[in-house]
Amino acid sequence: MGNDFIDRLGTKTGAAAIFAALKWDSDGLVSVIQQDAKTKEVVGLAFADRTALSKTLETGLMHYYSRSRKKLWMKGEESGHVQKLIELRVDCDGDAILARIQQVKANCHMGYFSCFSFAIKKQRGGALTVKVAGKKRFDPKTVYKKKA
Amino acid sequence: MGNDFIDRLGTKTGAAAIFAALKWDSDGLVSVIQQDAKTKEVVGLAFADRTALSKTLETGLMHYYSRSRKKLWMKGEESGHVQKLIELRVDCDGDAILARIQQVKANCHMGYFSCFSFAIKKQRGGALTVKVAGKKRFDPKTVYKKKA
Repeated sequence: MGNDFIDRLGTKTGAAAIFAALKWDSDGLVSVIQQDAKTKEVVGLAFADRTALSKTLETGLMHYYSRSRKKLWMKGEESGHVQKLIELRVDCDGDAILARIQQVKANCHMGYFSCFSFAIKKQRGGALTVKVAGKKRFDPKTVYKKKA
Repeated sequence: MGNDFIDRLGTKTGAAAIFAALKWDSDGLVSVIQQDAKTKEVVGLAFADRTALSKTLETGLMHYYSRSRKKLWMKGEESGHVQKLIELRVDCDGDAILARIQQVKANCHMGYFSCFSFAIKKQRGGALTVKVAGKKRFDPKTVYKKKA
């Protein structure tokens, strides 16, 4: 049993073989990095279980497993800000996926295109501070019924 | 205690306040996505504990915590393929970091620029298969003393 995804997969094809070669964690999850295919901006990091990954491949829309809500969800199911799948890439050891997606409107629940909108910067004198690095694309109050 | 990183940080500055506002998991780790700042290519996903993040900020070279080896490591300490820190970005809930870096040579231990070099593709007929999507930048045998 090789430590590398491609060794475990060998010459096999098909979803079942690919799923078997992935390295699911003790909760049955893999990390999924979301990268907008057009701008190449990384918009978020989420998790997928086998069901979420199957649904993503079946529908062409990104599905994830929410660790806090302990359930399957489709990105954009409430906001309409879906992520259309362009391509999935697996990393060398098979425990992480890079999802190249087309992001509708914005990913972040706070209204930013990317969840990674807070930059750690050095102030004059060397002390660290945090600056907002993204522009809001929508107002969460008008998109989410519940408090964001 | 807000669920959002920026609410927990408030108007505070300094590394201690930023570290306190991050959401470390039960093992004391945050996920770190590595993105080459020039090409915008995502080259890997790793983990950092407080020590690794401190070392990264002090030295300007990416440090991580290895979950398999259970120790701090500097990317490139053996291969010389270091990652120079350009900027760290924190996500909305504070449990993941996007490290914009300058990647020397290549990130992947297999010789690829990016660890995400295995694309899931649909064959004619619809069955899934995996294709290598990256070119080798070096030969692991010449770089690592032990078997990669």
